Amino acid sequence: MKITLVQNHPVFGDKAGNVARLVAAMESSPSDLYVLPEMAYSGYQFTSVEETRSLAEDLGSSSIDALRAASRRLDACVVFGFPERAGNLLYNSSLALLPDGKEYLYRKTHLFYKEKLFFSPGDTGFKVFDFRNAKIGIAICFDWFFPESFRTLALKGADIVAHSSNLVLPYCQRADFAAAVQNKVFIATANRVGTEQREAEALTFTGGSVLVSPKGEYLLEGPREKEAVLSADIDPAAARVKRLNPWNDALDDRRPEFYDL
Amino acid sequence: MKITLVQNHPVFGDKAGNVARLVAAMESSPSDLYVLPEMAYSGYQFTSVEETRSLAEDLGSSSIDALRAASRRLDACVVFGFPERAGNLLYNSSLALLPDGKEYLYRKTHLFYKEKLFFSPGDTGFKVFDFRNAKIGIAICFDWFFPESFRTLALKGADIVAHSSNLVLPYCQRADFAAAVQNKVFIATANRVGTEQREAEALTFTGGSVLVSPKGEYLLEGPREKEAVLSADIDPAAARVKRLNPWNDALDDRRPEFYDL
Repeated sequence: MKITLVQNHPVFGDKAGNVARLVAAMESSPSDLYVLPEMAYSGYQFTSVEETRSLAEDLGSSSIDALRAASRRLDACVVFGFPERAGNLLYNSSLALLPDGKEYLYRKTHLFYKEKLFFSPGDTGFKVFDFRNAKIGIAICFDWFFPESFRTLALKGADIVAHSSNLVLPYCQRADFAAAVQNKVFIATANRVGTEQREAEALTFTGGSVLVSPKGEYLLEGPREKEAVLSADIDPAAARVKRLNPWNDALDDRRPEFYDL
Repeated sequence: MKITLVQNHPVFGDKAGNVARLVAAMESSPSDLYVLPEMAYSGYQFTSVEETRSLAEDLGSSSIDALRAASRRLDACVVFGFPERAGNLLYNSSLALLPDGKEYLYRKTHLFYKEKLFFSPGDTGFKVFDFRNAKIGIAICFDWFFPESFRTLALKGADIVAHSSNLVLPYCQRADFAAAVQNKVFIATANRVGTEQREAEALTFTGGSVLVSPKGEYLLEGPREKEAVLSADIDPAAARVKRLNPWNDALDDRRPEFYDL
């Protein structure tokens, strides 16, 4: 399975232009699975609920239709973050589009920083879906900070965590090592680059997208400040080897009766 | 609070000699808290239940009495691993000795490799106790591999995880970064060095003891192959700052209703 992380620098609010550039980036490296950043084509740093609402979309938007078409044309699964409008509510969401028309929506469980001003906390829970020979789980950015997130996905059978991100700190990329090794999963953290100066606050995103193997190998590492298209071939079945040695298993050796979680 | 990690190379079965060397190491760096390795003075690689039983001890042993005396003399808390005999059962245990006579026993929750042949799985659960201005939690070696372990200790209020280890792989020292940052605790992994050749199998321990701060700083890093006494001053209260920014808290932002654990 060929997996590609797209590390982009979207222009705030230029949804059509950002989508076109994302599609061009995907076309430059034909793959089975593409993982794009959180808020991949909207920009991130909203300044009001009204502005967030004006950029948010339901699943029938022209942006998502363009990515749907790309998924079919490239015969690939595309996972990307976007600001979702669902009736009166706004969510920080991630959508997985499959070329056969199946779709899986995840709403971010753990909102970060001022996202709490603009979005409702996710209500979907963590999702895992089948695509070709892989089981793919979805998480968004700050979910990484709670080890329960990737653990829950692993326990639900994920081989690969598609982790769309807009990271402003460099901790996650380093911490993915522990989560990959402990859960014996591939972690695909697709992060953006660039600075957004909105009103008084500037946020700089840390790039450095990574693909980490169940053995803790950094198979891909993006640059810190530039856009990049990063591709690797992986065998998702490697994530199904949960046995560590004849006596230990990464998941079966858990002892939940002693966990206060 | 001054904390010292003792990274030793015990001689298999020479309990009195190993204890004497540990006490000398502790005396070389007067401290508030000493963290010693797992199986700190017995050696690790047992080859039968009978051999394990012959080296195991109850809490009244002369080895433990010598460490008790050191705790009082140095006016310090000493945490160390040892093979515990409790009636007919054997445990891979860690004991915290306080200079005022208080003691806390922890029995390893997650047994590694052939330990499963010789020890019963721990039945105490994860413990946190008060010492001076710190709350100290106890874990042993392979417990690190289950993120639930350090998480449980953090939720029980630990500022410092006293993590006595006999690590044969180098993953834990690197993964401590994630656990320290996500839980906002100090992690003190005291590991041993040296190779034990017992019957057909040789195990080499990876040293590299670490003390990691709640910010992910590696305050101490031991050598990979040599014994070492590593000391640092820390402020345990730094682990009580669970707030990340005005909108996020490392523990309160958990959403257990979405965790399948």
